[in-house]
Amino acid sequence: MNTLDLDHVAIAVPSLDEALKLHESLAGAPPTEPETLPVQGVRVAFVGQVELLEPLAPDTPVGRFLSRRGSGLHHIAYRTCDIERELDRLAAAGFEPIDRTPRTGARRHRVAFLHPKTSGGVLVELVEHARASAPPDPPG
Amino acid sequence: MNTLDLDHVAIAVPSLDEALKLHESLAGAPPTEPETLPVQGVRVAFVGQVELLEPLAPDTPVGRFLSRRGSGLHHIAYRTCDIERELDRLAAAGFEPIDRTPRTGARRHRVAFLHPKTSGGVLVELVEHARASAPPDPPG
Repeated sequence: MNTLDLDHVAIAVPSLDEALKLHESLAGAPPTEPETLPVQGVRVAFVGQVELLEPLAPDTPVGRFLSRRGSGLHHIAYRTCDIERELDRLAAAGFEPIDRTPRTGARRHRVAFLHPKTSGGVLVELVEHARASAPPDPPG
Repeated sequence: MNTLDLDHVAIAVPSLDEALKLHESLAGAPPTEPETLPVQGVRVAFVGQVELLEPLAPDTPVGRFLSRRGSGLHHIAYRTCDIERELDRLAAAGFEPIDRTPRTGARRHRVAFLHPKTSGGVLVELVEHARASAPPDPPG
């Protein structure tokens, strides 16, 4: 069995710009350029392994999370090199996928979520990184 | 300025034994041996970069978190090689330490927490790994 490595941890925030300043100051890492994902209803950017999620409107999943709980940890994401195979394996193991087929998420990666009710109250994302069109970086 | 890397993400759970089975099945990684930290009021173990926290009693910080919110993401931890220096830097940047001086946490690492009210609603831990008595692994 493959081991899934942690890809990132996501935090729901009311203001992406303020959160980027705070997390840059905390971790000392430069933020990525924000991108808007209309289908998911969020504007997102990363500081290291932390993803910051700002809702595009109150009636989006992240908007409702913020109204209910306020700013805070929203989900964790595991990296996989074969998201369909992982979804099949996890469904067979009793985890309930929210997305039966992967969709396009931040950074054009393929993503799918598992329902928190079958993963101990934690929303879990699977991420298969987009293949870059340029050749990969040399090792080291 | 140093960049802090993510060390782990912690999840509060009512039963460590059940959560270990679930997260081993999810991530495909073997759990570490559980350890009890009486001062923090928790029994903990790790599956990869996920720390699972079971309260030793309802009237502990993690016990109260579970009563209030149920199972779920509890905090994130950043690794540092000099925890006193990071505490000073972060306090000067406006982050409020919960622990003014580090204490001993899981795996005998030195740890200190920052108050969520100054870190965007997220409880943040700093971790300075204990030096192993054996020589370090060779690079690569």
